[in-house]
Amino acid sequence: MATIQDVAKYANVGVGTVSRVLSGNGYVKEETRQKVQASIEALNYTPNEMARNLFFRKSGIVAVIVPQIAHPFFAQFVSCTETALCERGYQTLVCNTYYEKNYEQRYLEMLKRQRVDGIIFGAHTSLDASQYANAHRPIVALDRSLGDTVPCVSADHKMGGRLAAEALLRSGCRNVAQFGKIRDGDKVATPSDVRHQVFAQIMKEHGVPCLNLESEWFFTDAGSYRKVADALLEDHPEVDGVFATDMTIMAILQSAHAHGRRVPEDLKLVGYDGTYGTEITYPILTAVVQPIAQLAEKAVELIIDLIDGRPIENKRVELPVALRVGGTTTKA
Amino acid sequence: MATIQDVAKYANVGVGTVSRVLSGNGYVKEETRQKVQASIEALNYTPNEMARNLFFRKSGIVAVIVPQIAHPFFAQFVSCTETALCERGYQTLVCNTYYEKNYEQRYLEMLKRQRVDGIIFGAHTSLDASQYANAHRPIVALDRSLGDTVPCVSADHKMGGRLAAEALLRSGCRNVAQFGKIRDGDKVATPSDVRHQVFAQIMKEHGVPCLNLESEWFFTDAGSYRKVADALLEDHPEVDGVFATDMTIMAILQSAHAHGRRVPEDLKLVGYDGTYGTEITYPILTAVVQPIAQLAEKAVELIIDLIDGRPIENKRVELPVALRVGGTTTKA
Repeated sequence: MATIQDVAKYANVGVGTVSRVLSGNGYVKEETRQKVQASIEALNYTPNEMARNLFFRKSGIVAVIVPQIAHPFFAQFVSCTETALCERGYQTLVCNTYYEKNYEQRYLEMLKRQRVDGIIFGAHTSLDASQYANAHRPIVALDRSLGDTVPCVSADHKMGGRLAAEALLRSGCRNVAQFGKIRDGDKVATPSDVRHQVFAQIMKEHGVPCLNLESEWFFTDAGSYRKVADALLEDHPEVDGVFATDMTIMAILQSAHAHGRRVPEDLKLVGYDGTYGTEITYPILTAVVQPIAQLAEKAVELIIDLIDGRPIENKRVELPVALRVGGTTTKA
Repeated sequence: MATIQDVAKYANVGVGTVSRVLSGNGYVKEETRQKVQASIEALNYTPNEMARNLFFRKSGIVAVIVPQIAHPFFAQFVSCTETALCERGYQTLVCNTYYEKNYEQRYLEMLKRQRVDGIIFGAHTSLDASQYANAHRPIVALDRSLGDTVPCVSADHKMGGRLAAEALLRSGCRNVAQFGKIRDGDKVATPSDVRHQVFAQIMKEHGVPCLNLESEWFFTDAGSYRKVADALLEDHPEVDGVFATDMTIMAILQSAHAHGRRVPEDLKLVGYDGTYGTEITYPILTAVVQPIAQLAEKAVELIIDLIDGRPIENKRVELPVALRVGGTTTKA
């Protein structure tokens, strides 16, 4: 099998020149590039990517760490991230942390061993934020505060909380509930918590009682969401408006049908995330839509900047959310 | 930084012994193993994974190629695959082929260059099956017929077609429709097509007219599913039973609500795949449930067998599906 040395010799150039042609980095005269290309083809040379990566000390791989790939928000995020990375010549390694919390430790080790060039981190974590901040390697956080040195991309959750509160108030709610903080022993704060503070604050300002409920995160376990939904409708018949993430809100819509509560007449619902499933319910959910594709695009842009050694001035990127008015707040 | 040679010298063993300890492959006396371990710790040795993989000619990475990671079936499949691979010490590289059909060609090249140890292939493809069969490398197909040499894991779609037909007949349907073959220029057959042949055949045997509709695949684009659903209800008011994949059936359920068609009284629906979204609709969908976790587990088992050089006797693995009776075929 031909080696890079053979290719260089055949083309009558140095090995460094062949490397530059292969990597596409650094200047090579067009004439020389063609000579190298012809040599590669004549010798049927296949670069050994692993050897090449050792040479460049790069793997060409970015890891995306999320709690559960199958959850609709993360499924869409991972999909968009893969597309954006692919466009830039990178490949995507994925990791669910749901089943094994400390698997993330393994990824941090991999980063140190240069197996992955960077990490986009969107998991809930049981590690200390300092472990990320001290990695001194390319890490971009999605919705996680991993310290001042780690760039964080998130939706404008403050705006999200406000849009949800205003949608329910506008449609006449006088007794609302929201499903907020997730109890999972997470050591790292997420900017998304702020939406619940904003929502509660606005309700308070309007003199509207607001029930702040906590819930575990059930990922794609529909049965568990249903139990939470049934409990809400049975224990709190006074509630006439609910704000929660998509899966919970869809379960409440389902439960409302089953309990003979009319949506939106008796009960108004606003989902958070606005993933595709919320558009094929009946009625279509009113939802605060996170800009998932743009979040992925921005996270990829930042991780590539870090990998390429470009400085990042703005380490806290917030992208606007939008209210999509469906049929669960006002009658269509 | 300590090298593998330093570790061997410190422990007073050969480099091969250190390798065997690191890889966990091959016999090493417990006493020797502990000596090597102590040496690794004393020298604070971190194996360079890429160098190690070059040595073993393995990357420790399996690629999973699907049309669109965000589609609920593939999101669940990729998630389960990642978990199963992780348990066996492998990592998961993912690839959407939706946006760029020939990206799969790049993955085949990677396989040749030993960048990935194997591929689990579940995409619709525009490549010729022979390109896979001739790769002579570890490939396992999910629901794709890539030639006699490539193992294929799929659900028992014949059984799926029969269960769906029987469910609609049992609930009294006299005019059914199914959404079948996907028009996307796919060159490779998928075993899943057989469910539509079986469904049509059973309806014929029972003298029930069956409308065989074709549809593109919209992945997570709810609006496109809605258009297809609205067109069915408006153009074919005589249809009293429909069989289609989850997203299409959910859109038809939504459209039925909007058109004042009662489900299940006027219209009966059976979904295919039974992904989590079908459990938080109202009513819960009656669905043929694919064993996604078991499909992933089996695909991983086979790819590891191939990577480790174990022969595979049964190259055609079919796993049973199950009918989950919800509220869209008979009144709860």
